[in-house]
Order: sequence, then structure tokens, then C-alpha cells
Amino acid sequence: MESLNTSRDEVTAGLLVIGDEILSGRTKDKNIGFIASHCTGIGIRLKEVRVVADDETAIISAVNILREAYTYVFTTGGIGPTHDDITADSIARAFGVSIDIDPRAVALMRERYAEADLTPARLRMARIPAGAVLIENPVSKVPGFMIGNVVVMAGVPAIMQAMLLAVTPSLKTGAKHFSESIHVNAPESKIAFPLAEAQRVFPEVAMGSYPFFEDGRYGTNLVLTSADTALLARARAELIARLPRDISFCG
Amino acid sequence: MESLNTSRDEVTAGLLVIGDEILSGRTKDKNIGFIASHCTGIGIRLKEVRVVADDETAIISAVNILREAYTYVFTTGGIGPTHDDITADSIARAFGVSIDIDPRAVALMRERYAEADLTPARLRMARIPAGAVLIENPVSKVPGFMIGNVVVMAGVPAIMQAMLLAVTPSLKTGAKHFSESIHVNAPESKIAFPLAEAQRVFPEVAMGSYPFFEDGRYGTNLVLTSADTALLARARAELIARLPRDISFCG
Repeated sequence: MESLNTSRDEVTAGLLVIGDEILSGRTKDKNIGFIASHCTGIGIRLKEVRVVADDETAIISAVNILREAYTYVFTTGGIGPTHDDITADSIARAFGVSIDIDPRAVALMRERYAEADLTPARLRMARIPAGAVLIENPVSKVPGFMIGNVVVMAGVPAIMQAMLLAVTPSLKTGAKHFSESIHVNAPESKIAFPLAEAQRVFPEVAMGSYPFFEDGRYGTNLVLTSADTALLARARAELIARLPRDISFCG
Repeated sequence: MESLNTSRDEVTAGLLVIGDEILSGRTKDKNIGFIASHCTGIGIRLKEVRVVADDETAIISAVNILREAYTYVFTTGGIGPTHDDITADSIARAFGVSIDIDPRAVALMRERYAEADLTPARLRMARIPAGAVLIENPVSKVPGFMIGNVVVMAGVPAIMQAMLLAVTPSLKTGAKHFSESIHVNAPESKIAFPLAEAQRVFPEVAMGSYPFFEDGRYGTNLVLTSADTALLARARAELIARLPRDISFCG
């Protein structure tokens, strides 16, 4: 139903998760869900997520495709001090700009580190592409950055979250979408027809159906989404009126 | 380090997660991590993940790009009975084949459902692209399918897992990669230099560094990966010998 909700002044985003450890399964990603919920909450529509390896060609290609396609691109991972952290350099290449140790980043890091602790490895984290705006992070002081429409953040969830909250006030946001959920104690197949009928009556309201399996029983969450709360309420009433009489639900 | 481990007879995969609910953040994906670990375990290298909306154009485009690029493509989500489940039809379009209710799928569903319960909505789940091989699922009986190199599975984790296990024996697999982890009680910046040096000595062994923040302290997991266990052991010894004397580690 994606396309029904798409409007010209919609603010969209793509997310690029960078890291071999996610693709090998060793680390379970915790950032996609957080960023997705955060975007929905502030009125940015996340349209696509990609996960790629710590591989320069893969990062550059994905960043360039996503930054053309969406209002914003968020990236997570690969901005640490070790040799496999190549995100900042890859982003600089994607934009065709130089990259070097940024005195503004070093100044922020001095708030945390003694001069002797600003080792070459730590200073590697102060490498920022030319023209980028820094994103402060209260957790570890090492900043993320934003260049063009690309927001580059750490992969460690607590630090990524701090950076995302720090950059949020500077992002343009669109109409918030509101959701109504109906939790149905019946499998999807029981509500497929009434749902499709209600969708036909209210084509502007996105209606999704999400099956679950809980305590040995199948159930379905029906979710209605719209930027217009009055329309949403009418669509919800329409759907509820069409649900079969013999199934129970909450919502 | 991705490219160092890539060989011509490597078996690769892309994963396509399909669903508005993941992109809105309402549902937190649990399939990426499972499929990633499973692939690593059986010697298939997951190279890329994409998450797209329940949108025909987005699904077709992603499937066609991924099936060209990798040995296999796994998809999750969008094969239920409701109007927003458009994965099977989109896959048929991507392959340019017809799609209809498949008597083999209906036969499998009869093992679970009485004839009267094979409603039009349920039969929608038996729509299978022409030429596809069915993937049985003991959990709900409704099958997934494989067409060309694309494995199409449900989004509900328990059902996806059953389908993945069912299809695994028919997949070709490559050399398994083995990993060694060293859990270091020091931030990444303390081990960046010795890690880069060890990497230089053993370029064929992928060496990754994964920072974490636990109980108020920074630590790092160093992970070495190779298909050659003897080489892996030598690289591990090299790295440990180079770690600073004043940091503690296990591994």
C-alpha cells in the first residue's frame, strides 16, 4: 500500500547498515528497528534499508544510489578507530571530497581524552570528509557527521541513538502518519476479504495485515495508517463493521 | 576485508526482507540475524540485505538485481492471504512467468484444512509462480517456493525458519568459514595498531574489530575469519603476541 501514502512533499529516508558482523550473523542488528520507529515518530518515511559489508565499492555504490533516491540517508557502523572501519573514507569518495583529521572533531574528543590518549588510532576517528557538519555525541564524544543529505553514525546502538537524537532537530520532517491497530484473534485468512473490502472503500488509508503465532494460536494485527486522523477513524469503523461476527478482537 | 575472502567458487546470497511493518518500525525484524547465522553455518556467504516495502516495483527491482548478483536470493514476508501480500505475484512478474493456484500447494494445505476451510483467502496462499519448486513447512502447511535461484519464504519467524531448514539440503554450499574471537577489555583505539599489523602479516585472514559498551566500560571483540583453520590459528597467535601487555583479554 506504500504508494497510496506517497505525496510530493513527503520526507523520505534510506538506511545503510555497514558491517561484515551483521552479514555473518555474529552481531544481531539493533539499529534498523530503532531508526525505523524514530523516523515514523518524527514524520520521515523510511523507504528502504540496505546492509552491506565493510567493502569500499559496496558502500560507495549504495550511498550514491540511496542519496539520489531519498531525502535523507542514515548510515550506521564503520566509523571506529580500526583498519576495518572504512565508512568515513568511503563516504568522502562517494562525494568526491577530501578527508582528513578535523580539528573540530579533535576539539570535541579533547573533552574526553587527555592529550597523551589522543593516539593515532583515536585520531583516526576524527577523520571527517571536507564540508561535513559534525554530529556531537555525549556518550563517547567522538562525533558522527552529516554531509549533503547523508547522516553518518556509529554502529554501537547507544552511540548511534545519541547521534540520531542530536541530528534530529536539524532534519526537515513531513506529515506524521498516524496508526490504528486492531488485534484480531483469528488467522489472516479469516479477515482477508473484509480487509480488502474496507481497503476498497478507503483507498487513501494504508491497511496492512500482520500475522503472528502466539501460545499455539494464529492471530493477526490489522494496522491502518494515514496522515488524516478523521479519515483514519472512519476507515477503522468501516473495517470493524465488516469483521466476521464470530471472531474476537481488541482495538 | 570482504574481498580478501572472496573466491570464485564461493557460494553467495542476498536477502530481501519485504514489509511495510519493518520499515515503519512497528515490527522488529528477527529474520536477518537468523538467516545470516544460518548461511554462515552452512558455508553460504550473505553479501547484502535489503528491506523494501510491500510495493510491486520495489520488490521486482530488488529481486532482479539480487538474483543477478548472487548465487541465491532469500526473501521473507508478503506471502500471506491478505491483499497487501504481493510477494508471490511480484516474483512471478520479476521472472516473467504466470502465476495461479497450484494444485500441489492446495494438496499440502488439505493436510491441515478441511475442504470448507479452503476459502478464497486461504487459496490465495496457494498462488505459486509457474515453474517453482514448493518448499514444505510443517508449521502451517502453507508452502514457500523456490524459483530459479530465489527462495521465497514467509515473514513469521517460526514459519520462515521451518522453510529455511526445509530448503537447505537442496542448496549448494561453499567452503565454511571458521572464526576465532578474542574478547578484549579495552577500547578499540588501544588495539587498532596491533590489529592492523597482524592483518598486514596475514592478509588472507579477515580481521574485524567490534566495539561494545558494557557495564559502563568499553571493550572490543576481535574476530578472525578464514576457511583455513591452520592459517587461522597462526594469525590468532600473531595477533595475541602483538596485543599491548597492559590489557586483559579472553579468547
